[in-house]
Amino acid sequence: MEIIRDPGDIRSAVHRLRARHGLPIGFAPTMGALHEGHLSLIRALRKEGYLPIVSIFVNPIQFGPGEDFERYPRPFAQDCALLEAEGVACLFAPTAERMYRADHTVFVEEAQITRGLCGARRPGHFRGVATVVLKLFHLIGPDAAAFGRKDAQQARLIEKMIEDLNLPIRLLICPIVRESDGLAMSSRNRYLGPEARRQALCLIEGLRQAKTAYEQGERQADRVRAMVADAIARQPLARLDYAEVVDWKTMQPVSVMGPATLLAVAAWVDQTRLIDNLWITPDGVPVL
Amino acid sequence: MEIIRDPGDIRSAVHRLRARHGLPIGFAPTMGALHEGHLSLIRALRKEGYLPIVSIFVNPIQFGPGEDFERYPRPFAQDCALLEAEGVACLFAPTAERMYRADHTVFVEEAQITRGLCGARRPGHFRGVATVVLKLFHLIGPDAAAFGRKDAQQARLIEKMIEDLNLPIRLLICPIVRESDGLAMSSRNRYLGPEARRQALCLIEGLRQAKTAYEQGERQADRVRAMVADAIARQPLARLDYAEVVDWKTMQPVSVMGPATLLAVAAWVDQTRLIDNLWITPDGVPVL
Repeated sequence: MEIIRDPGDIRSAVHRLRARHGLPIGFAPTMGALHEGHLSLIRALRKEGYLPIVSIFVNPIQFGPGEDFERYPRPFAQDCALLEAEGVACLFAPTAERMYRADHTVFVEEAQITRGLCGARRPGHFRGVATVVLKLFHLIGPDAAAFGRKDAQQARLIEKMIEDLNLPIRLLICPIVRESDGLAMSSRNRYLGPEARRQALCLIEGLRQAKTAYEQGERQADRVRAMVADAIARQPLARLDYAEVVDWKTMQPVSVMGPATLLAVAAWVDQTRLIDNLWITPDGVPVL
Repeated sequence: MEIIRDPGDIRSAVHRLRARHGLPIGFAPTMGALHEGHLSLIRALRKEGYLPIVSIFVNPIQFGPGEDFERYPRPFAQDCALLEAEGVACLFAPTAERMYRADHTVFVEEAQITRGLCGARRPGHFRGVATVVLKLFHLIGPDAAAFGRKDAQQARLIEKMIEDLNLPIRLLICPIVRESDGLAMSSRNRYLGPEARRQALCLIEGLRQAKTAYEQGERQADRVRAMVADAIARQPLARLDYAEVVDWKTMQPVSVMGPATLLAVAAWVDQTRLIDNLWITPDGVPVL
């Protein structure tokens, strides 16, 4: 696997890969600390006929003051081994110094989708996400990019950025990958001690109850939100950040849970903030 | 000349032009009402080996309330004739409805260069400029783009956007083109009646005095600013908006006029807002 560190080198590397493999380029941006969720993005791109390129970059500008930028896990050698095993041909892993010059002043702002949910709790977070993803898109020039639906608001933001800024990139939004007990995979799960790890199941438990209720006909957003809140309240180490039902396209709150809506939850478990969601497809199918 | 109206058609048109001519693509975005300034951009691109593509789009989101969006000149047939005569192979002229969907929410913001000068007087203007230029860059995928130095703050914004967002585009910033009496060419000059047209020379007169003073050793920003303000005050139809000396890179005010600074002026003449500037090159050469 070729590892590119310098943003000035990535375009020619991608150009060579295109020429050598004769395939369109698929891109999976990550912050490293890779797990099966990330690997599922790579596999989805390959399955759709793209040559996957992965980036690992812990993007400083999407972390707020007091967030976990410094302690965010960076198991680089282990990540490389996972990507090698996956047959990834090229990893782009720039340094923050080479990605952001000291006088960086240009940012991407989104005015609706990013207002609520995590956007309301993490000021500047989605500005940082949109900006770095656009930079990476410009550096790599992919034909397709893959994001996971666990970070639903982020996935919808990228979809909207592609639409509104006329980016010639196909977006694959991939299903949530879960541990065998149902916990949504996340790089932050490794922060959890054994007891917190056990109690962290309250998110999926609340969402499962909401899914069952939905399948039995429940449509009142307040009631499904309360199910999630109750499941979280039952665990002493857990504290609800939000549980909201929103329209998938606008990410604005709705009172009726139906097709193309999202029940999104964020909760602190011990010192770790976790998110998860239940998506109702446009066809009305609830998907965890 | 091929005229493309639909953003959905422009990429394939550019692809065909690339294949047919075997040249890199040069792009000159305009709002139409073309004059020799615009044509100089096309010629500069051609001279550097690019196949020029021009856009005409009066971008609604860069006009503020009460500005001249509605009455902005749109002499489309005349513009097409000028571009035909220039040998331009492709004109992209989309409608506002096809460029901005009703739910458009993604914008490019710049946090330093655009704060002062015209940015301070026209809130949202440069956000609109940066956003539409990025959209056009994504639609056309040019190898180079040309902007005029008359709109110096805009040119520097685009340069900064290319740097900060890692766009693979070479920027040509082209000299100001002037009428024989020195008035900087602008689509808005056609708003001027005969008497206002005569008095509009106060901008270039002030800048010429500043240039002469600079050549004679004057470096105090306050004094050169006062020369411009005085020249404008002498004309009864003219009213100074600003005259500032700024660092070219940051567009922040400086007290000493020297290499890589800009003396920028904006003034109302009758009902028309005009801008012009004196640029001191990094080598210390004053250029009008």
